[in-house]
Amino acid sequence: MVKKRKRILSGMRPTGKTHLGHLHGILENWRDLQDEYECFYFAADWHALTSEYKNTAVIKESLTEMIIDWLSVGLDPQRSTLFVQSWVKEHAELHLLLSMITPLSWLERNPTYKEQQEELADKDIGTYGFLGYPVLQAADILIYKGDYVPVGKDQLPHLEITREIARRFNYLYQETFPPPEALLTDVPNLGGTDGRKMSKSYDNAIFISDPADMLALKIEQMVTDPQRGYRKDPGDPDVCGLFPYHRIYSDSDVVAEIDTECRRAGIGCKDCKQMLLKKLEAYLAPIQEKRQHYLTHLAEVDEIIHEGTRRAQEVARQTMVEVREAIGM
Amino acid sequence: MVKKRKRILSGMRPTGKTHLGHLHGILENWRDLQDEYECFYFAADWHALTSEYKNTAVIKESLTEMIIDWLSVGLDPQRSTLFVQSWVKEHAELHLLLSMITPLSWLERNPTYKEQQEELADKDIGTYGFLGYPVLQAADILIYKGDYVPVGKDQLPHLEITREIARRFNYLYQETFPPPEALLTDVPNLGGTDGRKMSKSYDNAIFISDPADMLALKIEQMVTDPQRGYRKDPGDPDVCGLFPYHRIYSDSDVVAEIDTECRRAGIGCKDCKQMLLKKLEAYLAPIQEKRQHYLTHLAEVDEIIHEGTRRAQEVARQTMVEVREAIGM
Repeated sequence: MVKKRKRILSGMRPTGKTHLGHLHGILENWRDLQDEYECFYFAADWHALTSEYKNTAVIKESLTEMIIDWLSVGLDPQRSTLFVQSWVKEHAELHLLLSMITPLSWLERNPTYKEQQEELADKDIGTYGFLGYPVLQAADILIYKGDYVPVGKDQLPHLEITREIARRFNYLYQETFPPPEALLTDVPNLGGTDGRKMSKSYDNAIFISDPADMLALKIEQMVTDPQRGYRKDPGDPDVCGLFPYHRIYSDSDVVAEIDTECRRAGIGCKDCKQMLLKKLEAYLAPIQEKRQHYLTHLAEVDEIIHEGTRRAQEVARQTMVEVREAIGM
Repeated sequence: MVKKRKRILSGMRPTGKTHLGHLHGILENWRDLQDEYECFYFAADWHALTSEYKNTAVIKESLTEMIIDWLSVGLDPQRSTLFVQSWVKEHAELHLLLSMITPLSWLERNPTYKEQQEELADKDIGTYGFLGYPVLQAADILIYKGDYVPVGKDQLPHLEITREIARRFNYLYQETFPPPEALLTDVPNLGGTDGRKMSKSYDNAIFISDPADMLALKIEQMVTDPQRGYRKDPGDPDVCGLFPYHRIYSDSDVVAEIDTECRRAGIGCKDCKQMLLKKLEAYLAPIQEKRQHYLTHLAEVDEIIHEGTRRAQEVARQTMVEVREAIGM
């Protein structure tokens, strides 16, 4: 008997263009997981509503392009199921059913809840749906009986709620959902051009779709060691915003050389940026080429999304039959 | 052009047998509304989960029988759309979408929320879904663009949340939902056999399905004026648990006579109960006869529920097309 591959579940919110933080923090990880797992990746457009319900245009604009980015980075629709959350209505039904058994206290004590409320203070997110974010997330994962969920450390509390909801459902009704396990992923610490966390809302992001002149401009603007005023001053790569990028794009001997030379002013920030720009361009070139292909073959993309959604629906519908039977309604 | 009839929306939770409180407080009103309105009445099985998620068997057991009771009382499937909430999955989708725009504070300040939490203290209802009850209710009503909702005074705050959610949706996206209006209904104050509020959980209810001997027993047990110790003592109909029943079942001259005679001990509680029992039996006889018909023709009932659900789905699906377009996703 062939051993069934374990199933991975993960989603991304279509709330803007894909930047390098997404690329190295999430998408390359998703791509690599395809080798070992059966992967379900979805565009979390309903989740996007929690913060963007007043600005839904961005969701529609981002949705197809985000999936094009996935394909361009190497997600393979032959091996992975790529789909749109809101097209699989069963997520909403399971979300409603799980809402009935989820104690409010689990949601209120969720540490990311209060954090995010502060972070998104300008977005008016004191809504019922925002509080219930982890319930919808639980539905997203459990409806496919995901075995693993790739998460950064900060998302562990969310996943723990999913696991608790799964256990509670199994206890109240019957064994239905395997509590999914975390697949902890290292997220490289890539800051934006201004040194803060890379984020669309800070206007400091480098997008994977940026053309060459835009890349050059952004790299030129990038904050390095703020203490290094002149070319002749030695710099400190440990506080430089650029250096983490070299770790990703440059060969290890070059990284070592920069590390040494910067500290003794053997290399200037301008040279360093030039070196990085070349590497970054080369890295993004094949991705941008594929993007160009898909952007001019939208029917192909549509077909991929529809086929993925069809596959996801099939699994979700089967699970809901079991769920209704377990609950007895 | 024929003036379109206004649409009524209302639901009832399948959480046990139909008692006289349901009959005179809700169902007869529903029946009469059919003459003037286009009525959508649904079995609120998802709502039933808010309090019965640990005891779902009661929902399954009650569902068909409850709708049989509706038919027996005179709800007419030719004129009214009778359906099951959980069969129209669109309610769950709209519930999810509305959850994103509903401020938590609207739900937390809902006066019936805290009341019910106290009333159902033994049921462990501190759940996310219980807090969101009014959001699901809003989805139930708005998805059919109900013009009127028959409510008792105590439910007005719930309906007000539906109206606020409708207005907020219209404001954020585009004019989609007419805020439904209340159709205030007088609920006769019928107590249970022990004088408390009639409720399945107090074990004091008279069910419309009770056979003659059970009716006799329950009427015999009924608490009258507790101050009237002996036949020769005068009684007070104003504090008697039986008297409100006479107002419903007996002719007005008989009611007047009892009112007079009781106060001067001209009639005893036993006689009074005998008179009521006869009237009650006669009142329930045609209803019980119809019940018997449907209970032995379940395929007919199934067909009615399926046809009603089909009609409801058609409307719900059309509304969801508009909703998704309005939101822009």
